[in-house]
Amino acid sequence: MIVIDREKLAPLPLLTLAAPAIRDAYIAMTDGRANLPPVGYLALAGRNADCHVKYGYIEGDPIFVVKIASGFYDNPAKGLPSSNGMMVAISAETGDVTAVLDDKGLLTDLRTGIGCAIATMALWRSDARSIGIVGTGTQARIQIRALSALSDRPLEFMVWGRSPEKTAAVLADVADLGLSIEATTDLAGLCRHSDAIVTTTPSKEPLIRSEWIAPGTHITAMGADAPGKQELEVALVARADRLVVDLAGQCLDHGEFSAAAQARLIDEERCVALGAVLSGATEGRRSNRDITIADLTGIATQDIAIARTALEALGLL
Amino acid sequence: MIVIDREKLAPLPLLTLAAPAIRDAYIAMTDGRANLPPVGYLALAGRNADCHVKYGYIEGDPIFVVKIASGFYDNPAKGLPSSNGMMVAISAETGDVTAVLDDKGLLTDLRTGIGCAIATMALWRSDARSIGIVGTGTQARIQIRALSALSDRPLEFMVWGRSPEKTAAVLADVADLGLSIEATTDLAGLCRHSDAIVTTTPSKEPLIRSEWIAPGTHITAMGADAPGKQELEVALVARADRLVVDLAGQCLDHGEFSAAAQARLIDEERCVALGAVLSGATEGRRSNRDITIADLTGIATQDIAIARTALEALGLL
Repeated sequence: MIVIDREKLAPLPLLTLAAPAIRDAYIAMTDGRANLPPVGYLALAGRNADCHVKYGYIEGDPIFVVKIASGFYDNPAKGLPSSNGMMVAISAETGDVTAVLDDKGLLTDLRTGIGCAIATMALWRSDARSIGIVGTGTQARIQIRALSALSDRPLEFMVWGRSPEKTAAVLADVADLGLSIEATTDLAGLCRHSDAIVTTTPSKEPLIRSEWIAPGTHITAMGADAPGKQELEVALVARADRLVVDLAGQCLDHGEFSAAAQARLIDEERCVALGAVLSGATEGRRSNRDITIADLTGIATQDIAIARTALEALGLL
Repeated sequence: MIVIDREKLAPLPLLTLAAPAIRDAYIAMTDGRANLPPVGYLALAGRNADCHVKYGYIEGDPIFVVKIASGFYDNPAKGLPSSNGMMVAISAETGDVTAVLDDKGLLTDLRTGIGCAIATMALWRSDARSIGIVGTGTQARIQIRALSALSDRPLEFMVWGRSPEKTAAVLADVADLGLSIEATTDLAGLCRHSDAIVTTTPSKEPLIRSEWIAPGTHITAMGADAPGKQELEVALVARADRLVVDLAGQCLDHGEFSAAAQARLIDEERCVALGAVLSGATEGRRSNRDITIADLTGIATQDIAIARTALEALGLL
């Protein structure tokens, strides 16, 4: 059993290397190759902490993956990050543990960022150039890097945050990319200006109003991943021409689309799977005036895809 | 993150060291301290293989545990063991991975053996001396070692197997204990002679007939752990005065008691929890003429208990 730590994974160019496998990970969800049991959930009584266990198998893959991701919400007060994670990659030939990826959540951050970039690029208008990034955390940075690395065209970024210091820090952190990028505290202005918007906040109240969104805009909503989180007005979700999900059961239960579903404004029939859009089985955007929204909550096939890519890059598969 | 391999775990005297914690692991199931989500199950399409993920938390414990156990049923043809397993022990204070226990199933074998010995000793007659072991595999050996190590009295063992060579091998493997022990191919004779019987086979047909079992006998049935496995006649299960389970949902679904439950000869109300017997909340054996049967299918609190004990013994907790 080999242990691979975060320091060994961080230098790998996974944003580009893993994109084809993560694209395929969505398609595997829709063509019968993926076996994805329900996500396991453990609450730690008395600890203000919990743990998710995500696992699955893509038929034909050399490995399968069990990911253990914990949230310890009192950690920041101790100077520790609240989230942690590791993956166990197991040979699908023999059951031997191929490697323990002690990535402390890095691979999850990257596969999430890559997946959202893939969704954004699959659903934006063919002439989209201006990208609005809502939020100033880790995923704001990863979205800028992933879209820049994977896009077939030059992009212009605008980053919104309530704090000018935090948006300035995002710009400083991606300065090495030499991008056209600016910061704003005017969210309505960002929405009106952007061809595609990526929302990356942990907001529990809708930030983006329907009236700010022009026809033809695409939105990838990645922040809402638990009950009670919401970044978009339900009227905007209800109004969209195309609703795209990674996994309808998750998105309608605890993703961005859950509030609109609870209000009975949308249902599963309104949603199409990202994998079906990527494979061509279903249309994504159908006109330049469509408003499209992708709600991504994360699926274990993405974990398999990035773990496999990392192990291949390290010569271990 | 520390990795502890099987070779480092094997010399630890866990059969005795872990017994108090495993006893408490059953009690924790009945007094509200244990959080035990449903066992995760992943089938690997096209591989004749599967994987179980067991995890849980005992309130107040310094760690929680995620166990990954795989079964690769084509492995024996390749000269590899079909079952494999490892445990991840995670700090319940911070979410940091305390250790990866790369035990390849050793800790599962030991916690299973200890748990069954605890159940046997809790339910046998106060004058029980003669122990019948049914089967010649790993658990036959572990049962003999665990009962010898944990019993408050000298015991006499009889081991049954269809193959005299295999029973002789069991006796040779425990010769270091200097026990009173004999082998037999007469299962009816073993049953009639034994005060307590432990069944450890993967049989898919009932081996033990009701007519062979005298009043006052205790049976611990540990072999049946999946649909279709059965070691005892359903008439024997139906006739027993006391049915004891580690977890009723598991035992009635895919343990020894499932066949009798499917035949509607018993139901959950007939079963009492081993933890409640151990804590004194419920009576176990109620007379010297009771036939008692314990059906044990394995629970994640046992994994937590043995992982914690091993880490303590290694000075890591």
